[in-house]
Amino acid sequence: MRIDLNADVGESFGAYTIGDDAALMPSISSASVAAGFHAGDPSVLRHTIRLAASHGVAVGAHPGFPDLVGFGRRELNVSADDAEHFVLYQIAAVAGMAAADGVRLQHVKPHGALFNMAVRNAALAAAIARAVAAFDRSLMLFGLPGSELLKAGRAAGLRVAAEVFADRAYEPDGSLRSRTRPDAVFADPSVVVARAVRMMRERVVDAVDGTRVALEAVDTICVHGDTPGAAVFAARLRAGLEAAGVTIKAIGAS
Amino acid sequence: MRIDLNADVGESFGAYTIGDDAALMPSISSASVAAGFHAGDPSVLRHTIRLAASHGVAVGAHPGFPDLVGFGRRELNVSADDAEHFVLYQIAAVAGMAAADGVRLQHVKPHGALFNMAVRNAALAAAIARAVAAFDRSLMLFGLPGSELLKAGRAAGLRVAAEVFADRAYEPDGSLRSRTRPDAVFADPSVVVARAVRMMRERVVDAVDGTRVALEAVDTICVHGDTPGAAVFAARLRAGLEAAGVTIKAIGAS
Amino acid sequence: MRIDLNADVGESFGAYTIGDDAALMPSISSASVAAGFHAGDPSVLRHTIRLAASHGVAVGAHPGFPDLVGFGRRELNVSADDAEHFVLYQIAAVAGMAAADGVRLQHVKPHGALFNMAVRNAALAAAIARAVAAFDRSLMLFGLPGSELLKAGRAAGLRVAAEVFADRAYEPDGSLRSRTRPDAVFADPSVVVARAVRMMRERVVDAVDGTRVALEAVDTICVHGDTPGAAVFAARLRAGLEAAGVTIKAIGAS
Amino acid sequence: MRIDLNADVGESFGAYTIGDDAALMPSISSASVAAGFHAGDPSVLRHTIRLAASHGVAVGAHPGFPDLVGFGRRELNVSADDAEHFVLYQIAAVAGMAAADGVRLQHVKPHGALFNMAVRNAALAAAIARAVAAFDRSLMLFGLPGSELLKAGRAAGLRVAAEVFADRAYEPDGSLRSRTRPDAVFADPSVVVARAVRMMRERVVDAVDGTRVALEAVDTICVHGDTPGAAVFAARLRAGLEAAGVTIKAIGAS
Repeated sequence: MRIDLNADVGESFGAYTIGDDAALMPSISSASVAAGFHAGDPSVLRHTIRLAASHGVAVGAHPGFPDLVGFGRRELNVSADDAEHFVLYQIAAVAGMAAADGVRLQHVKPHGALFNMAVRNAALAAAIARAVAAFDRSLMLFGLPGSELLKAGRAAGLRVAAEVFADRAYEPDGSLRSRTRPDAVFADPSVVVARAVRMMRERVVDAVDGTRVALEAVDTICVHGDTPGAAVFAARLRAGLEAAGVTIKAIGAS
Repeated sequence: MRIDLNADVGESFGAYTIGDDAALMPSISSASVAAGFHAGDPSVLRHTIRLAASHGVAVGAHPGFPDLVGFGRRELNVSADDAEHFVLYQIAAVAGMAAADGVRLQHVKPHGALFNMAVRNAALAAAIARAVAAFDRSLMLFGLPGSELLKAGRAAGLRVAAEVFADRAYEPDGSLRSRTRPDAVFADPSVVVARAVRMMRERVVDAVDGTRVALEAVDTICVHGDTPGAAVFAARLRAGLEAAGVTIKAIGAS
Repeated sequence: MRIDLNADVGESFGAYTIGDDAALMPSISSASVAAGFHAGDPSVLRHTIRLAASHGVAVGAHPGFPDLVGFGRRELNVSADDAEHFVLYQIAAVAGMAAADGVRLQHVKPHGALFNMAVRNAALAAAIARAVAAFDRSLMLFGLPGSELLKAGRAAGLRVAAEVFADRAYEPDGSLRSRTRPDAVFADPSVVVARAVRMMRERVVDAVDGTRVALEAVDTICVHGDTPGAAVFAARLRAGLEAAGVTIKAIGAS
Repeated sequence: MRIDLNADVGESFGAYTIGDDAALMPSISSASVAAGFHAGDPSVLRHTIRLAASHGVAVGAHPGFPDLVGFGRRELNVSADDAEHFVLYQIAAVAGMAAADGVRLQHVKPHGALFNMAVRNAALAAAIARAVAAFDRSLMLFGLPGSELLKAGRAAGLRVAAEVFADRAYEPDGSLRSRTRPDAVFADPSVVVARAVRMMRERVVDAVDGTRVALEAVDTICVHGDTPGAAVFAARLRAGLEAAGVTIKAIGAS
């Protein structure tokens, strides 16, 4: 068994710090770097790309809504055209900064509300896929298994990666349980490892009501980096997976 | 004689419009497209690149200070590192959006206060040149003749283009007369044509006090696009130059 | 008959201009001044307040979503708490700037998507009303007749003003026809005057399908200021109303 | 002896946290609350005002440059008019939000580069003083002893408070040693207490080169809140001052 562990990084902004990316890097194989609209700034972006490269971590662009104060987590009723253009802009900025340091972009993962809206909003999903495909057809697009985003990515001729959230509770319909609920997140690494292994082996996840939710694919596991103790948690998750015989490797690595 | 006519374009933002880029395009050979920090947004950027391409106008990136309300015209005391990174970010965004439409970036021209500060601030000039060179050594860097920016560009191994302002008054030291002065701008196209032709032929410009200012080179003439009547003025400037035997051609064209 | 004519003003931003407020002021009795989040900046705000005062036009705050690039016209899924706080912030800013010039704020009118969402979203409407009431219970709250916003305003002990749009088409349910539809706006001033007079006299408006929509009240008519020719249109609307025997007076004037 | 201890608070923004205001409040007597341009957002602002009020800490407005990514610490070449208007806007916003919770604003303290530029830039200092005076002549204006800001405040008829930095090194000319220097900050609370007491008793401070710098007045001591351990440091500073017989009281308290 082999899996990709990805985390959202580069979310600091100016004098503001979120997460401890340096501590997190040794545990992950892919980094989705905030592209400057919902989080991140050009200096943070460049340092984060260099940090990822120095750890052999694959780099992806993490475009979000132009909503810094909302951290890109609030639904915004953008037109498909505007979404296509601001996603393209953000991918181009991250890819170009990466290229300036000799790093080739591996993937694109929409952030927050943009990611969540693209689960069901086909027009928005198509706009995101158009932006990725227009920029570079070899980029991989991350999305929720069964989402419109992955459908749109495939329709656009992109390789897609089905992302699962081993530390998050699932609803019976395969969506993530809202973070506003107290039981939305699993805090025990051994539980999360067990969930991850089951997801990989059986392509299912148990929803909050006990329903078995089928997962069309399990390509990459999201590790949260913006909570206190995230780096320690990630290290234990990686160690647990490796102990279970799972190899951690970037999704785009041969 | 051959010269490049360049204009700043793509400065509209959301519901806000500046300039009439569609009317201006037929008169220019190079377009410096606002990169989203001092003006422009991703949708405006994409439409402007496509507009330029449809007119056979070469496309450049026009990065500026992160100061939308000040339109990038106010000096901001940024660190050289931050300048390098936000210039790189903006170049990458414009170049990537252009590439998505099959357009290759020709040049980089810093905007407003960033351009003006780089005339004398060697550290800032070097940071800008580093950003351009890190992204793509084949890009041409626009700057004032005699500026630190052109020196830094050459030192970084870049091709540079000396930009003159045929409709602007010059100070004896070769800097542009401040727009806050009533005699900063020439409004008569025939005067501007005569000034442009003299600049090209003799590599000099007469300063406000009559001093002859030597110009190290004259590669591109800036046409202002954000004033009422700018398109008509540009058309008359182009016609006047062509009537004087000058060929208008993008600086990067063979 | 007496009516208030209000317009959204102060929407320029830095180097960007929207509307011709100076030309519009003679035709209106109340001005809703953009508060800096979706449009406007502190310098524009101050000049606009002074301009309104010099024309004897009553001043209101026009708070919007923090979405400058979207001009506050895109729905944003904010929490009620955040909405309360950013509305309060914006009202305070406008009221304080007005007070600095001896002008007392008359009203609050939410802008764009915030206004539209508050037609049906009771929690959002209550948050807006809380902000107004917390700041100054004597402020009048503008909203669509029959909206949750007016209900929430009354429940909070505020005076409310029912705003109608004489130049906009209505849907059978009393909402405004989307501007994306070609028949959303009436361009003929005489038609708009006739619609306005009927609204005032009979408290009804004919919807696009012929349905008669009852209006709970008709206190103020919105005049659009951001379209070309808006000032001329407003002047003709005012003249037409006065010719029909209607007195134009600010809603808060005795 | 009596002194005011003030700190900059409310600098968090959306998902980004700076400082631990709740832990700091018990140690200070005046809070300068970020007004939303260089730091802070409306929700943070409101919570911070309420937090200060619950601790009996006096509230001031802390306006800064519109430079969130630079945290207001970079010099920006604004016009005096623009400065007057954005300072007025920010004061109005904070004062109005405070009033909504029954809190009366005590003071205004410009932030970062705005504060530092107003030490020597008389036009900028006058613009700030005009904004404060236009809003409320009873507000106190904080500034560096000997600064143009305090002069402008007095000239505008305002009460002013001379602010000293007991934990910061001073240059021989009375300015603060740049934070880029390793010896810019004193980390030992007992040293800082001794410096503070000497400042209060003798109205002098020893500059880095041993020069004795005379202080025209010592009204309030700035406590930094944005560094790790700031709350503990502030508590020790307060305890040290009280042990030295100094009463800690808000500058505006009777």
